[in-house]
Formats: sequence, C-alpha cells, structure tokens
Amino acid sequence: MEQRVSFITLGVADLARSEAFYRALGWAPSKASVPGKIIFFQLNGIVFGLFGRQDLADDAGVPNTLPGAFSGVTLSHNVRSEAEVETVMATALAAGGAQTRAAHRADFGGLVAYFADPDGHHWEVCHNPFAVIADDGSVRFGRS
Amino acid sequence: MEQRVSFITLGVADLARSEAFYRALGWAPSKASVPGKIIFFQLNGIVFGLFGRQDLADDAGVPNTLPGAFSGVTLSHNVRSEAEVETVMATALAAGGAQTRAAHRADFGGLVAYFADPDGHHWEVCHNPFAVIADDGSVRFGRS
Repeated sequence: MEQRVSFITLGVADLARSEAFYRALGWAPSKASVPGKIIFFQLNGIVFGLFGRQDLADDAGVPNTLPGAFSGVTLSHNVRSEAEVETVMATALAAGGAQTRAAHRADFGGLVAYFADPDGHHWEVCHNPFAVIADDGSVRFGRS
Repeated sequence: MEQRVSFITLGVADLARSEAFYRALGWAPSKASVPGKIIFFQLNGIVFGLFGRQDLADDAGVPNTLPGAFSGVTLSHNVRSEAEVETVMATALAAGGAQTRAAHRADFGGLVAYFADPDGHHWEVCHNPFAVIADDGSVRFGRS
C-alpha cells in the first residue's frame, strides 16, 4: 500500500449548507461534482469531498451512529488497477484492519472496498478509472 | 483561503497500536515523528499524523466526547506567513465557522488556530516554519 491518501470526504448533515460554507472560504467545486448529491474540490494533488453523512456511512458499510461507530470522515486510497484493490485490502486485513465492505462495483464504474483502522477510521480502497494518479501519488479527479 | 489541505490527523486510542498498524500497511514514519507522542507520515504532498485522541481533542480545543462533539479527525490548512493565520480564521468565521481555539503560539514555534465547520469537523490553521509549502500547495514536513 503506497504511502499516500487520495480523497478526504466529510459526511455532512446539509450538503447545500456545507457547499456554501466551503465556497465562502473561497473554494470552487470541481466539475466532477454532482450538484445536490456530492461536491468535490480539487486540492493539492488530492480531492476533498462533501457527501451526505448517511450516504457516506452507507457507502462505507457502517451504521450512521455515534458514539464511535462512524466519525463522519473517510480517507480514500486510490490504486492504479482493479487487482490492487484486493491486494491492498488483503494487506490491510493482515495488518489488523476490519473489512466493512468487500470489493464491489460502484455506480460510477470503479471497484471499491472499505476497511476500518484500529480506531474505526474508515478507509476506502478504490480503483477509479476517472481519477488519474501521477507518478508522485497525487490524484487528479474530473475535468476541472 | 487557498484550496488545499496540508495534514490529516487521526486521533487514536493507542498510538503504538496505530503506528504498528500503518507500518504493517507498508508505511514508514517520517523523521519528524516524536516517538510515543505523535507519528507523522509524509504522503503525496501532504502529511498524515497519528496523535492521541485526547491530545488531539485538547489541541483542537474541544472536549473528547461523543456523540458529535469530536470526530477524532482534524484537517490542517497550513499558510505561508503568521499573518495569514488571522486572515484565514477571519474568512472561516465570516463563512459561518466556529472558532474553537484562537491563534496561539504552539510548542513547536508555529502559530495555530482552530475552527469547526458546520458539522463540527475541525480545521487547524497553522503557520509552521518547518513545513515547506510548494507553489502547488503541497506541503513537505520534516527531513524525511
């Protein structure tokens, strides 16, 4: 598992409110966003996402409950091939991670799985054919 | 506020356990780490940190409680001058963020403040003289 992170996603209670907040910070959403559903911001070689908290919990395969079960944050580690999704998950589970979702075909066409680290921080392992990973591990997503 | 993130920090219950977990993923800590206190990993132009959950909550100026008050994750936005800490905080508060800690001198010599976004996700705004910010917004921290 290469030493990098590709996306940071925050689960939010009100997507419009959160999008307005980050716009008010001076940030501009990426054209990869799906208005009203998920908002992306291209950062410095990584992507920052805002997603409904329930949607994000569902995506990670965990209950949207507190305390403890779900922090409202996921980190995504993108890989360069579908085969790597399985190898990274195997590494994570061997390291003591807990699988919360097995590898599955995502709606956008990629292959996605999730594991939780020892504190329940959720990592997505993802092959996304639309997210370009540079040699330095930076990811660029979408067209903006 | 530039469109980027510099550090991702996870609050963890057992630092040694978490360090062992990420090492087992194949990651190598940065020489910037303080063994037994805080562990850093240089990622793709950003830095990933493991820090005691209570320490992280204390650093962010929030109670280490659930539900809701603290997710166990912070995002850090580093700036290029101390003056920018105040300007970024002013922007964040004007956008509807809530200050959880006013700007203050950190032990390492930098200037640090914290705000919470609408869902209580905690952002550190930090001028760290030891973290070099490249023109593209990527940050490199420490000597490794």
